[in-house]
Amino acid sequence: MAVYTEISDDELRAFIASYDLGAVHSCKGIAEGVENSNFLVVTDRGPFILTLYEKRVRESDLPFFLGLMEHLAGKGIACPLPVRARDGQALRRLAERPAAMVTFLNGMWPRRIATGHCEALGEALARFHAAGADFAMARANDLSCAGWRALAGRIDPAAADKVQPGLAAEIAAELDLLERAWPDALPRGTIHADLFPDNVFFEDGRLTGFIDFYFACTDSLAYDLAICLNAWCFEPDGSFVPVRGRALLDSYAKVRALDAAEVDSLPLLARGAALRFLLTRLYDWINHPEGALVRKKDPLEYRRKLAFHQRVKSAAEYGLSVR
Amino acid sequence: MAVYTEISDDELRAFIASYDLGAVHSCKGIAEGVENSNFLVVTDRGPFILTLYEKRVRESDLPFFLGLMEHLAGKGIACPLPVRARDGQALRRLAERPAAMVTFLNGMWPRRIATGHCEALGEALARFHAAGADFAMARANDLSCAGWRALAGRIDPAAADKVQPGLAAEIAAELDLLERAWPDALPRGTIHADLFPDNVFFEDGRLTGFIDFYFACTDSLAYDLAICLNAWCFEPDGSFVPVRGRALLDSYAKVRALDAAEVDSLPLLARGAALRFLLTRLYDWINHPEGALVRKKDPLEYRRKLAFHQRVKSAAEYGLSVR
Repeated sequence: MAVYTEISDDELRAFIASYDLGAVHSCKGIAEGVENSNFLVVTDRGPFILTLYEKRVRESDLPFFLGLMEHLAGKGIACPLPVRARDGQALRRLAERPAAMVTFLNGMWPRRIATGHCEALGEALARFHAAGADFAMARANDLSCAGWRALAGRIDPAAADKVQPGLAAEIAAELDLLERAWPDALPRGTIHADLFPDNVFFEDGRLTGFIDFYFACTDSLAYDLAICLNAWCFEPDGSFVPVRGRALLDSYAKVRALDAAEVDSLPLLARGAALRFLLTRLYDWINHPEGALVRKKDPLEYRRKLAFHQRVKSAAEYGLSVR
Repeated sequence: MAVYTEISDDELRAFIASYDLGAVHSCKGIAEGVENSNFLVVTDRGPFILTLYEKRVRESDLPFFLGLMEHLAGKGIACPLPVRARDGQALRRLAERPAAMVTFLNGMWPRRIATGHCEALGEALARFHAAGADFAMARANDLSCAGWRALAGRIDPAAADKVQPGLAAEIAAELDLLERAWPDALPRGTIHADLFPDNVFFEDGRLTGFIDFYFACTDSLAYDLAICLNAWCFEPDGSFVPVRGRALLDSYAKVRALDAAEVDSLPLLARGAALRFLLTRLYDWINHPEGALVRKKDPLEYRRKLAFHQRVKSAAEYGLSVR
């Protein structure tokens, strides 16, 4: 939850005046999102989300993110649509930061995951992948396998072992294995790469859309599924829920069939996804700045998930129906 | 900025179903308010603010706060109006906490104070005091003079002196003086007692209402003005701005005349108000819980304001026009 930057009423009024949105009636900082500052702005034309991009987002990546949302919305994928100002630009500046207004998406993210959520997610993810197939822009995933060693190198091993004895060595061993075995010839495309429950909205059990495209990139499509397996298919106590895995994978495969290599790679991709979130959470845990307004997320949750995936032999164990 | 409690979508849907507000379309935690958890909930009937009362608010005080808002709104004072559920109750429970829905107030709080804001504030405060005159409920101000010694007693003098050498002794001396001199026969009524800029909304320069009545109580009306002098009439560099003081006091006095005792007491009331915020900020500064999601406010800002008021000889120095 975070609002890192204050916007003055004068600044906001001047900013909104450059859009065809009428007058501003209110602006409230939203206690969601950890990377950027988000505001719910109500104008004559209804509610919008205003995002100020803080320093963790590279400014040169913003045209990719905004272009992707526009591309997807144009293909009927439910997601926020960047609003262009009168000068035709969606990416603007406010309070000395890059800034964009996007349309407001109804719905709430599910706090308690049910199988039905996973089923809807699988279908929506496959439709998202299909819609992204002809998106012309590309963006490397610096948080995929090639980036993990550099990320691990920024984590002090002694500090990691203080979080959990032996953790640094476990990470090093997993990195060695994944770097040797990581599949790099799977079907690729535009992936969301951060499809946690708080980025998927539902209304009355119906999926209303995805938000927060600020990790989106070009990578193996099945890696997105592996991230969802980690984020959606475990109970809070750490146990895997096969019925959710099956709902996710089968509903995905109904829309976009998985090829044999993707199916075979799923346990490895899931290990990679678990390591990726273990590494970023561990880094944030150790380097949590004093006064940060964000709750720290437990890195060991992903160590437990990693340990689960290390024992998985085939995608069938995740629930994928034999075809 | 704070959301201390998560609400699940199921809980929220069940909660909203007990009102005549239709279906819930979205719910976003708001990064404002430090005492309670606030959510902007959009239903078929538009936007509302849902507040979960956290442990710093005494549950037995809630009928006073909600009753006051209802009383004021009924008299045409712009403020959030508590929404009654179908059972007639405005005060309900959600996520194991007392909870209330109130109407949404348009406007934004001013980030940069101009004289016009102070002028509008003075008039609105006087109208607020007039409207509260026949409010039947009463609530003692535990953060007025009688409560300061107990509050100061909870602050470790050594810790205070670490914030600023000599601070503990300064506070003790000021307390002694204020306890001897505190005026207790001024006109009384219902005061807001926390009318900082973030609790006053404006739209296009027009004051649209007050929010956050959770320090409201029964006390000397002029003490509310003294709080506003502290909160609205100083520059960030600590200098007092007489033109703002004049705008505040004169516009107030046009609606509700100040009697001679109130005018004479103003410097003392302003010292008291400065000490009150110095004490609570100092306590929070020293006892800031690890992991709190709230920015600490500088207590020394109020030490500087206190020092200013200690040198003030009469209300004329605040800008009040001689009558």
